[in-house]
Amino acid sequence: MRTYLDCYPCFLRQALDGARYAGADHRQQQRVLSHTLDLLRRVEPSRTPPEIGDEVHRIIRRICGNSDPYRGVKDACTRQALALFPELKARVQEAVDPLDVALRLSIAGNIIDLGPDHEYDLWDVIERVLSQAFALDDRAALRQALDEADEVLYLADNAGETVFDRILIEALDVPVTYAVKGGPVLNDATLEDAWAAGLERAATLVDTGSDAPGTILDRCSPAFRASYDGAELIIAKGQANYETLSGAGLRVFLLLQTKCPVIARDVGVPVGSIVVKQG
Amino acid sequence: MRTYLDCYPCFLRQALDGARYAGADHRQQQRVLSHTLDLLRRVEPSRTPPEIGDEVHRIIRRICGNSDPYRGVKDACTRQALALFPELKARVQEAVDPLDVALRLSIAGNIIDLGPDHEYDLWDVIERVLSQAFALDDRAALRQALDEADEVLYLADNAGETVFDRILIEALDVPVTYAVKGGPVLNDATLEDAWAAGLERAATLVDTGSDAPGTILDRCSPAFRASYDGAELIIAKGQANYETLSGAGLRVFLLLQTKCPVIARDVGVPVGSIVVKQG
Repeated sequence: MRTYLDCYPCFLRQALDGARYAGADHRQQQRVLSHTLDLLRRVEPSRTPPEIGDEVHRIIRRICGNSDPYRGVKDACTRQALALFPELKARVQEAVDPLDVALRLSIAGNIIDLGPDHEYDLWDVIERVLSQAFALDDRAALRQALDEADEVLYLADNAGETVFDRILIEALDVPVTYAVKGGPVLNDATLEDAWAAGLERAATLVDTGSDAPGTILDRCSPAFRASYDGAELIIAKGQANYETLSGAGLRVFLLLQTKCPVIARDVGVPVGSIVVKQG
Repeated sequence: MRTYLDCYPCFLRQALDGARYAGADHRQQQRVLSHTLDLLRRVEPSRTPPEIGDEVHRIIRRICGNSDPYRGVKDACTRQALALFPELKARVQEAVDPLDVALRLSIAGNIIDLGPDHEYDLWDVIERVLSQAFALDDRAALRQALDEADEVLYLADNAGETVFDRILIEALDVPVTYAVKGGPVLNDATLEDAWAAGLERAATLVDTGSDAPGTILDRCSPAFRASYDGAELIIAKGQANYETLSGAGLRVFLLLQTKCPVIARDVGVPVGSIVVKQG
């Protein structure tokens, strides 16, 4: 997805939010803002929002001298999600269609996203998503692809959401490689967050070799690229993966909630929708 | 009120909104955004938000070649409010305390504001404000000042809100001078908008001589300055007048709804509050 003009105010807001998560004082916040204004003046708008967001978060980390501003909130999100894990597992086990419930829970977990400017009650979101109609529904194609695949490459999104991904992965009959970020950016999951959520019990853990949001392939490690290029079936979670992988081919399934109005418009659905999109 | 860092993303959003109200094509929107980024890079943060907003709206008008981008929406807001006028008058006439109801209606009308990023249902807002508790309540001081004053200088805010101001002015026992902007900016009322709302039947109409949002005194005409300096009692409507006149002395009463989180925090009340603040 290209960067829309409406993304610019949002980059500026995210720069301030990030600086505050990093514990920046007023002067540091001013510097982050000012450097982000410079960045936005010179940035090539044909780039995707996560590519620009990547630079914004580098500015935050550099100026605030904090390599992982979202560490505390990521840990809290993982703990909150883990506390729900037994209840979520029970919901899947009791379900008439366990795979559908697990898929919905994985999408419900995508609400745990500190990029957009939104507040949420996690349990309310779970209840909503369990009964919500899909605004874009390629579930049948995903089920067929899952039946035919020998393995799945699963591209993670955020810490805490990892626990919901584990629910889905444990409901699959096929081995999964779970790919997290190569380093901290925003509240995206790294190996540390995947371990904290117990993903090593459900999947083979790898990292993409990149600390940019989404999946920017030419920034990933050769090892991850080889894994991506050879994958039969790719499940990619969240908005940033939509922004970077939409249009990447029929073996890619994008699972997300549309929280941002610009992304929702690009997908062609209302804000607050749940989406399974092939390709 | 000083400009907070959180105002910067909002200026950028308002620049885009304004360009679209002006009918800008994509290229013009890009130019407006780019010029606004330049402005925000060099602007002195000790200035008030309306002073910076004034420059943003000048960029919009110049680049889009549209001297009054909000003309259509201002007319529509005035028509919508005028359609409610008989019902609003009846509410005041039937009230046990007509002045209180008229004051509340004037504050309800302050919802008609295209600066903040918000949507509203006008009648829902009216019903809410008629029974809402004031978060900051200098009504008693205002009533006393109205009892003692020989005349009132009333600083208008937005087109459409004018109709609600007329309701309050017609409930006062004292002559009123109603001051609108000297030229179009955002959806602020000009003489044209005051006439369309029938204000000439209720008050003496003047303009401030300035087309900046709020009331930036050193940008106003000498005639208006003289009127302001000599006024016994000043009623100033809306957020931009709060931003430019807060702290201007005890003869000034600020009447507003807090729609913007930054202004709400500066006032010390929640977003969505109704406020009568002396000085």
